Amino acid sequence: MSIVVDDDRVLLKHGAGGRAMRRLIEQSFLRAFQTDPVCPAGMIGLAEMDDGAAIRIDDRWLVLTTDSHVIQPPFFPGGDIGRLAVSGTVNDLAMMGATEVLGLTCSVILEDGFPRASLDRILMSMRDACREAGTCVITGDTKVMGKGELDGIVINTAGVALTTRVVRDSGLRPGDAIVVTGTIGDHGMAVMSTRHGLDLDMQLRSDVAPINRLIQAARDAAPDAISALKDPTRGGVSTALHEMAAKSGVGIEIDEAALPVRDAVRGIAELIGIDPLLVANEGKALIGVHADAVAPLMAALHAHPLGVDAAVIGRCTEDHPGMVVLTTGFGRRLLAEPDGELLPRIC
Amino acid sequence: MSIVVDDDRVLLKHGAGGRAMRRLIEQSFLRAFQTDPVCPAGMIGLAEMDDGAAIRIDDRWLVLTTDSHVIQPPFFPGGDIGRLAVSGTVNDLAMMGATEVLGLTCSVILEDGFPRASLDRILMSMRDACREAGTCVITGDTKVMGKGELDGIVINTAGVALTTRVVRDSGLRPGDAIVVTGTIGDHGMAVMSTRHGLDLDMQLRSDVAPINRLIQAARDAAPDAISALKDPTRGGVSTALHEMAAKSGVGIEIDEAALPVRDAVRGIAELIGIDPLLVANEGKALIGVHADAVAPLMAALHAHPLGVDAAVIGRCTEDHPGMVVLTTGFGRRLLAEPDGELLPRIC
Repeated sequence: MSIVVDDDRVLLKHGAGGRAMRRLIEQSFLRAFQTDPVCPAGMIGLAEMDDGAAIRIDDRWLVLTTDSHVIQPPFFPGGDIGRLAVSGTVNDLAMMGATEVLGLTCSVILEDGFPRASLDRILMSMRDACREAGTCVITGDTKVMGKGELDGIVINTAGVALTTRVVRDSGLRPGDAIVVTGTIGDHGMAVMSTRHGLDLDMQLRSDVAPINRLIQAARDAAPDAISALKDPTRGGVSTALHEMAAKSGVGIEIDEAALPVRDAVRGIAELIGIDPLLVANEGKALIGVHADAVAPLMAALHAHPLGVDAAVIGRCTEDHPGMVVLTTGFGRRLLAEPDGELLPRIC
Repeated sequence: MSIVVDDDRVLLKHGAGGRAMRRLIEQSFLRAFQTDPVCPAGMIGLAEMDDGAAIRIDDRWLVLTTDSHVIQPPFFPGGDIGRLAVSGTVNDLAMMGATEVLGLTCSVILEDGFPRASLDRILMSMRDACREAGTCVITGDTKVMGKGELDGIVINTAGVALTTRVVRDSGLRPGDAIVVTGTIGDHGMAVMSTRHGLDLDMQLRSDVAPINRLIQAARDAAPDAISALKDPTRGGVSTALHEMAAKSGVGIEIDEAALPVRDAVRGIAELIGIDPLLVANEGKALIGVHADAVAPLMAALHAHPLGVDAAVIGRCTEDHPGMVVLTTGFGRRLLAEPDGELLPRIC
């Protein structure tokens, strides 16, 4: 198979979570790593392009994830890069069905001259987020780059967890309901507004939070009825739904009126012309669930502080597999998958 | 306990692997994470400041490590940032006694405009190093930062491995021999010479390599006789020996004449006035071994392609615990522990 590489340089869009990033991963990362004969058989690895990898250990799965966080600015309404790093990794583990986190790594790269007080504030925020998630940082690494070689701070966190049953992002079945665990677009809109000085009355706050315990409550309430999980981070709900639909081989129909969006987010979205469906979330999950189990699932979500705004937003169909259709007050339209130029350094 | 923070900004020396970095970790990272009540009991965690963490799972230990790699330049004689990333993480696992690697994560941060061809070359190099180590990349992450926000590329790798017996860097006992698995200073001298255009006849080559199979051969040859393992990366052999001596509560005496140093490294070292004992290695281990098992251990190391230059370089004493004494042709002198300003971005 010959592969057409469409850019000879890495561009900002390649880090934005959309189609451009997926092409980069397919053309470079999968090409290098996917077919390696050394990889253990029967694992969930890179080729699955899920939120993490899973390796069989006796009668359980060891789930492993990694994320580097490059958000600008490092402090924003509702959180900071430390809380983001812990939440991002805990949530990726939870999206694989692994809600009991064994431990996290913390690798920090700092620019020469970065304030020690800011570093300490970020580390304390990581500790607090770990406590919310019931886990802790167990090993780390520190590097320093010269002035002008790195813009401030980046943090990588990797995490490990054990689970008896892995949940995939590819398990949707026709008839399943699609649930979102709360309002959409909060993180991306808060960060972008901070960056550009748009949110003058400071109503926007990132939703960044570890949601592993919310997901555990959801699984307890609907055992074996959850068919798929994915967190709509970079690229937003739209990108996540497109990935889930394509990998599951189903169509997804979304009811626009059912999407929970805060007024402040809707206001900024209209002002700058960006659809909240395309904007990053850092404390939300999309859940595919069998229609019979919607009621107990929603009750469990609504009973949890991080799930009070949870809503059923759509359903899966046999028609138009891989596509996402939006039902609006004016009819139906196909939701395009974002390519990814939108928002650099949003996470 | 009140903690005196000695700098209000992060400086280059804080990333160099010496005393300054240890103080930063103690004052900021351990302060935030060490005493967390959520951490599982009985684990080897952050406070141990070993090469990684270990969590008990049934009758085995799950070992977890992380490293971010910021080396400049990304391509250097003998390797590149990709080979370095895989080797660094595989070797940290091996230094905990975990030589069968389950899998690695690969999180790449790129500067807008980074050449795709360079990225692909780096990823293929990672794959080749994985094959040498008998492992593979199983999950990853990609971020892009704007032009001027990051100097080229950084790569984080985390790794997981299982072992029935963890080896620590703190297990040295009086009477143990100290072995190094090969020549010292090759990596740091090759990178520094490339950076400054010193190695005109290109004799210097980094030693960067995964040595997990070498370490496995050593353990097979001297079962239960290996008391401590550490890889002398940033800060070189001197920093690693100081850490091992302090944590083990023994003194270490090193015979300068026994140190294996390549002629080219010795030449550059004399030219620029840097002791090879202070220079980073990326394919070497320091091994503490019971005196009775030195012969079979050395035979196993010498039989392996990565251990042909292995040498017994010293021994552990009850005297002067925590100190490293160098025996030279002119007498004995105390080896000072480096503070860490030497070589930024060496790994």
